[in-house]
Amino acid sequence: MDPSSLALPHVAKLHAYTPGLQPPEPGWVKLNTNECPYPPSPKVAAAIRSELGDEGAVLRLYPNPKSSTLRATIARIHGLKEENVCVGNGSDDILNLLVRAYCGQAATLGFTLPSYSLYPVLVEIQDGRSNVIEFDRSMRLPVDRIIASSARAFFLTSPNAPTGVGFSNADLERALAGYRGLLVIDEAYAPFARENAASLVSRFPNAVVVRTLSKAYALAGIRVGYSLSHPSVTDILDRVRDSYNVSRLSQVAAIAALEDQPYYDGVISAVVATRDRFVADLNNRRRWRTYESQSNFIFTEPRNAAGESGPAVAKAAYDYLYAQKVLVRYFPSHALTASFLRISVGTDAEMAVLSEKLDAWQKL
Amino acid sequence: MDPSSLALPHVAKLHAYTPGLQPPEPGWVKLNTNECPYPPSPKVAAAIRSELGDEGAVLRLYPNPKSSTLRATIARIHGLKEENVCVGNGSDDILNLLVRAYCGQAATLGFTLPSYSLYPVLVEIQDGRSNVIEFDRSMRLPVDRIIASSARAFFLTSPNAPTGVGFSNADLERALAGYRGLLVIDEAYAPFARENAASLVSRFPNAVVVRTLSKAYALAGIRVGYSLSHPSVTDILDRVRDSYNVSRLSQVAAIAALEDQPYYDGVISAVVATRDRFVADLNNRRRWRTYESQSNFIFTEPRNAAGESGPAVAKAAYDYLYAQKVLVRYFPSHALTASFLRISVGTDAEMAVLSEKLDAWQKL
Repeated sequence: MDPSSLALPHVAKLHAYTPGLQPPEPGWVKLNTNECPYPPSPKVAAAIRSELGDEGAVLRLYPNPKSSTLRATIARIHGLKEENVCVGNGSDDILNLLVRAYCGQAATLGFTLPSYSLYPVLVEIQDGRSNVIEFDRSMRLPVDRIIASSARAFFLTSPNAPTGVGFSNADLERALAGYRGLLVIDEAYAPFARENAASLVSRFPNAVVVRTLSKAYALAGIRVGYSLSHPSVTDILDRVRDSYNVSRLSQVAAIAALEDQPYYDGVISAVVATRDRFVADLNNRRRWRTYESQSNFIFTEPRNAAGESGPAVAKAAYDYLYAQKVLVRYFPSHALTASFLRISVGTDAEMAVLSEKLDAWQKL
Repeated sequence: MDPSSLALPHVAKLHAYTPGLQPPEPGWVKLNTNECPYPPSPKVAAAIRSELGDEGAVLRLYPNPKSSTLRATIARIHGLKEENVCVGNGSDDILNLLVRAYCGQAATLGFTLPSYSLYPVLVEIQDGRSNVIEFDRSMRLPVDRIIASSARAFFLTSPNAPTGVGFSNADLERALAGYRGLLVIDEAYAPFARENAASLVSRFPNAVVVRTLSKAYALAGIRVGYSLSHPSVTDILDRVRDSYNVSRLSQVAAIAALEDQPYYDGVISAVVATRDRFVADLNNRRRWRTYESQSNFIFTEPRNAAGESGPAVAKAAYDYLYAQKVLVRYFPSHALTASFLRISVGTDAEMAVLSEKLDAWQKL
């Protein structure tokens, strides 16, 4: 008896989401999963140590099931109420809960292509239906097509991934006013952008803003994300959420981080400055087609020594960097992404190593 | 526009699982959620501190997506291979993944009543179908009815909850040999039992054993659970699992705990000794009907001063204890549980407080 034959048919044939490589051994310049190159606020480790005490005795007790104090902290920061906030085991948890509550065989989930490649996987796990809106090469937000969509909910990565292109609140407001479904604005990278949509939640009942502490807050290791939404959406998410989805240590770590905004303002400024210098170099010196980034990563189209670009060239650059122990990300499966590399913004030292390696590759 | 109208119909009407009360303020004797009354191994806090370092710098990086080192540790302990192990954000995560992969409109999930009250909630979230097998008052395992069940998967809490009654491996083997679906043996409380089913996983491809670190390992606060199963079931769970479902600190904490079995042998012996003394007192002195417990909680039918028992009496005892800041659990919704209280085994000092309060209540 092979027990896998018992799995639901759609599960038996689905492919898991492929996360970026997390090499277990040291020695890599890791620019592939948009982690923050700087450590979290020192107040985070202090808060964890304080929760632990000498013996970690408190770990024997379940965490607060609603992450109530963390919700209150998040609400205060965004000028909202606790009833507007749900906390997840990473923002992927929140996205998954949204799919479970708003997507099925009779309720379509819309999203753009390209965007965060987890969305179609979540729809497949749910055995739901999806409606894909393709960007053109300008990567401008297709507001009218979102408004015209019959999808029950629409996931929008904003700034977009893997392009890094930001969208204006004016465009988002127009989409929210016209669209009849739930517009989920996945703002994983919003702290690096000029604008964000958090203030739209109190004005548009169909706006859901999703945030993570994995990127700007340098806390990918603790798994905390959250949603800002109309209270009735929060209520729905809490019904499908696991009761103890966020650990004690993650709750106190997230609170400490969110309360140390001055520290993170410095981190974000440093990342943005490095990013803008690197993008300028790609554009001006290398003449590589590079989207304006409002995120902590850069989407660029490599050119080889002969001045050629395209999927084979991007793949060659990726492979060369990999052999040199520099990890970036390559998305071969779509025409709009297959000629590009996505490079997370590292420290200036890491970006200097990358630049050297790219120089060497271009001389091959 | 009320965005809640956009939720799927089955989600809009479902009721969330109600976890036991987690009072935020101190001063309670907390015997309601089967936490361990003793702290975790001191090696847990040491491992967390070591992972943190001075500044928590490593928290900026994503955790190992498969919790690989933790899987290897678990596999070694049970004499299995990594491919037999999946790790969850608590065992509730594993149970949820099993429901997502094996339960739907055309695939029934079976479970007994009473048992862990999360199961029907997970089926409702999935909009799946369930098949309930009721215990009789003996609480003996209905092996033949499980074998005859057409359910695609069957969840069995073993030892059972909230009764604490254990099942023999002989009965479980007979069920596994005869049942054609996946038999999920939810062993949250197995470390307190005489037997457990871990060794059956390599013999029966349809056996899935689910464990948690929340009870015997005194780590409810970190959210780690796991499954032992045929590799093809592990593969299915990994496809529906969130890629980064377990935080860095939880992974190292779990490894440290599992590697300090001598410490936990002491904890388990202490809990079992307290339990058995308390059960003997309930039976012999109070003459309260009490199931033999193979878990870290006790299921007993209170009698008042007049010698009466029943739902009103159990509710009165619960309310009296609550007013005295002693928290236990009361399950009024089923005839087999409504006359009983479920009492987590605390320290001897906590059980002495409980005993005093029960004496006072019985004199009312």
